Amino acid sequence: MGQFPMPDVMVSDLGPDGGSDLHLELTGGGGARVRLMRALREAIHSGRLAPGTRLPPYRALALDLGIARNTVAAAYAELVEEGWLTARQGSGTHVAHRAAPLEPGHTRSPQRPSRLRVIHDLMPSSPDAAAFPRSSWIASARRALAAAPSDAFGVGDPRGRPELRQALVEYLARTRGVRTKAEHIVICSGYAHGLRLVSQVLRGPVAVEAYGLGFHRSILAEAGLPTVPLAVDADGARVEDLAATGARAVLLTPAHQYPTGGALHPERRAAVIDWARATGGLLLEDDYDGEFRYDREPVGAVQGLDPDRVVYFGSTSKSLSPSLRLGWMALPSSLVDDIAAAKGPRELWSGVTDQLTLADFIACGSYDRHLRRMRRIYRHRRDLLTATLAERAPHITVSGIAAGLHAVVDLPPDSERAALRAARRLGLALDGLAPYRHPDSRMPLRDGLVIGYGTPPEHAFAAALEALCLALPDLP
Amino acid sequence: MGQFPMPDVMVSDLGPDGGSDLHLELTGGGGARVRLMRALREAIHSGRLAPGTRLPPYRALALDLGIARNTVAAAYAELVEEGWLTARQGSGTHVAHRAAPLEPGHTRSPQRPSRLRVIHDLMPSSPDAAAFPRSSWIASARRALAAAPSDAFGVGDPRGRPELRQALVEYLARTRGVRTKAEHIVICSGYAHGLRLVSQVLRGPVAVEAYGLGFHRSILAEAGLPTVPLAVDADGARVEDLAATGARAVLLTPAHQYPTGGALHPERRAAVIDWARATGGLLLEDDYDGEFRYDREPVGAVQGLDPDRVVYFGSTSKSLSPSLRLGWMALPSSLVDDIAAAKGPRELWSGVTDQLTLADFIACGSYDRHLRRMRRIYRHRRDLLTATLAERAPHITVSGIAAGLHAVVDLPPDSERAALRAARRLGLALDGLAPYRHPDSRMPLRDGLVIGYGTPPEHAFAAALEALCLALPDLP
Repeated sequence: MGQFPMPDVMVSDLGPDGGSDLHLELTGGGGARVRLMRALREAIHSGRLAPGTRLPPYRALALDLGIARNTVAAAYAELVEEGWLTARQGSGTHVAHRAAPLEPGHTRSPQRPSRLRVIHDLMPSSPDAAAFPRSSWIASARRALAAAPSDAFGVGDPRGRPELRQALVEYLARTRGVRTKAEHIVICSGYAHGLRLVSQVLRGPVAVEAYGLGFHRSILAEAGLPTVPLAVDADGARVEDLAATGARAVLLTPAHQYPTGGALHPERRAAVIDWARATGGLLLEDDYDGEFRYDREPVGAVQGLDPDRVVYFGSTSKSLSPSLRLGWMALPSSLVDDIAAAKGPRELWSGVTDQLTLADFIACGSYDRHLRRMRRIYRHRRDLLTATLAERAPHITVSGIAAGLHAVVDLPPDSERAALRAARRLGLALDGLAPYRHPDSRMPLRDGLVIGYGTPPEHAFAAALEALCLALPDLP
Repeated sequence: MGQFPMPDVMVSDLGPDGGSDLHLELTGGGGARVRLMRALREAIHSGRLAPGTRLPPYRALALDLGIARNTVAAAYAELVEEGWLTARQGSGTHVAHRAAPLEPGHTRSPQRPSRLRVIHDLMPSSPDAAAFPRSSWIASARRALAAAPSDAFGVGDPRGRPELRQALVEYLARTRGVRTKAEHIVICSGYAHGLRLVSQVLRGPVAVEAYGLGFHRSILAEAGLPTVPLAVDADGARVEDLAATGARAVLLTPAHQYPTGGALHPERRAAVIDWARATGGLLLEDDYDGEFRYDREPVGAVQGLDPDRVVYFGSTSKSLSPSLRLGWMALPSSLVDDIAAAKGPRELWSGVTDQLTLADFIACGSYDRHLRRMRRIYRHRRDLLTATLAERAPHITVSGIAAGLHAVVDLPPDSERAALRAARRLGLALDGLAPYRHPDSRMPLRDGLVIGYGTPPEHAFAAALEALCLALPDLP
């Protein structure tokens, strides 16, 4: 098995509270965020910031350094992502224990300070990399490259290849109820790139789900857009609270709330469109795993309700592979020009060969076949997960299992860190719920594990489940 | 033939000088640059800014709007690139004539307001799109995808695939004298993406060649890095002037100055490294067409002189196709971590399939074969260009022809615009020298045409040359 980063959860003692007198010099080039991140990494690397040290609240540090709060929040969030820092519920941000100074001679990527041997990989957000359909992909590539006009290999339209945009119009209408046309689709290098582009033309604040990826919040923060949390429950985000937030846009995962797993209730789907129409607001719809439904009715994209008020995002990152770097946006017509301008005339970003290949892959039915096959595989794993937990840990509830590639295992209060520690000892990589929580959320704390059952190769899944059962807390 | 943007050169009358009372409201979302560009486009589109209108100097507009000078300069440069504005030597920035309000029912991309029927395409910067080696590329893709480990299709290293970085180490050492190792290479989506990443960790000012792409200057300006021009002559940039600029980095095209065509003189190659060592400065070496040499000795990359003081940039955009969006940087070891952090852990940008394919394409010798073939083709076209001009326009000199995919045709003073107008009437797309000139340069003005002889397909080259001869001014 490879080496994967794990969230650092080994902090069992509280380090010295160095927050109030943290001295940082933002030297070197780059924007304030880059310089702050570098200064923090250096301070940690040199040992000046010891493992466990509590960092000042981002508001305080922003005041000290004379830079924007959002910038500090974005830097903290990225360093948590990278493993240098840990964010703990109710106790602020700390230097991770695994981010301690390097042993001499040990080299590592700056992104991944916290590696250890992973034997079982249940990290969420990835499909099974071993299941990539290599031969049908190559067959499509051969056909697509042979059929492409010569000018496909010249400088092209920044919105992406017309073949792919047309194939997506038909595919998204058929499978997701998306209403759009090729001129309103912009191809991008996956969801993060799309969100980065859209955030250049948005105004804040942006409402986000109280549980979601910190990485996405940091993209908005970097663009100067403050985020405000919306509580989530089994029916998705509480969009009825939107009006009170003053938000101009809302970022949701309606088909399968990430990571807690609910589908946005039909009344809330209608309510968010009503809000957008009444306020001139915009829904950013992250349809990251809309293809994977098991035992519930397919839920179409909210975009179909009002294409003029929704930016719809999709990608191949869950359906095929994150390594393709292919995503798409179906845009309201009013945004197309600004987004194309933000993308820039010279930087196509997504390679044309993969765009042409995916267009053929969709058109010839290979994409549907691959998705059907993966749906069977993931559903089987999901069933195995729930059956195993029902038998081995009947006191534990699993949620968010009707769709997607991950589930949430709810844990008794205050047991998440212990469970993650136990997992780590077993060489089991998975996520806790804590890092997903918006720092400003007032929702009740929730302890749990996020299980990515799509990630391991088929042969390794049973052993990963066994490790999971061993890591769970015993009956209280 | 397709439709291509042409630089707008139809301005023969001076419009009203609307500069001093230009009223713009920067409404809507986005950063200042995006909002200023939108406001200018809207003012032009609505007719409020008439064709030919002179815009205020960017310093003045920056003061009026309370935004940074660099931001206005970047917005102007991008709108010139897009064809909304024209920058004329000595007379400032004007609204392009072709950027006039749309006829009803006419749709167009926001990037390309100025399209007209192009019959002959000699726009510089593109290889022959029809010569893309489809079958050997697919053969490499098939081998590479079959051989790749499963984890290639998972979440990978932000620096890019190890197979490609290793193949590049060997290839660049052999063909360009680059000294690096796989850990110091970062794959990116072409030169612009690489420059954007590097500019996030640089401090300004950055010295640039007095003639170069405005698009590259605007990338630096967007990152808050002021640029200062270095005069260029037949031996490349006058790096002896570097010390006086106070620059902390210098961006050069040493192998083939773009667009004027000289190679950096050996003494200047040594001098720029001496400067970098003495001042802690950095050379950004844009090796955009280093593969194409005709009748002069191959010139290795300056990077080989001191890998710790040079960021070396290369890409497939001239050698294979700009549609692949594949480039690379060989970095000083001290910059690797910051660049990888600027690139971000989640956004690989360049698809893995093309990275794996290019690694095989290099390793199996297909890249060398393709380059040899293209070198023959382009050399033949270059010979035809010089022979034709010698016969048909003996009063015109051609320069920069020892290498690359373009040449510069020098014109008598004040005849560039007339030649571009004549070309336009003939349906011939090419560039003048004026838009390449740094606005602050004090070099003597130079009139000329930049001829991209790589761009047309093989069968269309002779007719394009004929049109070029017709567009050139007669003997004075």
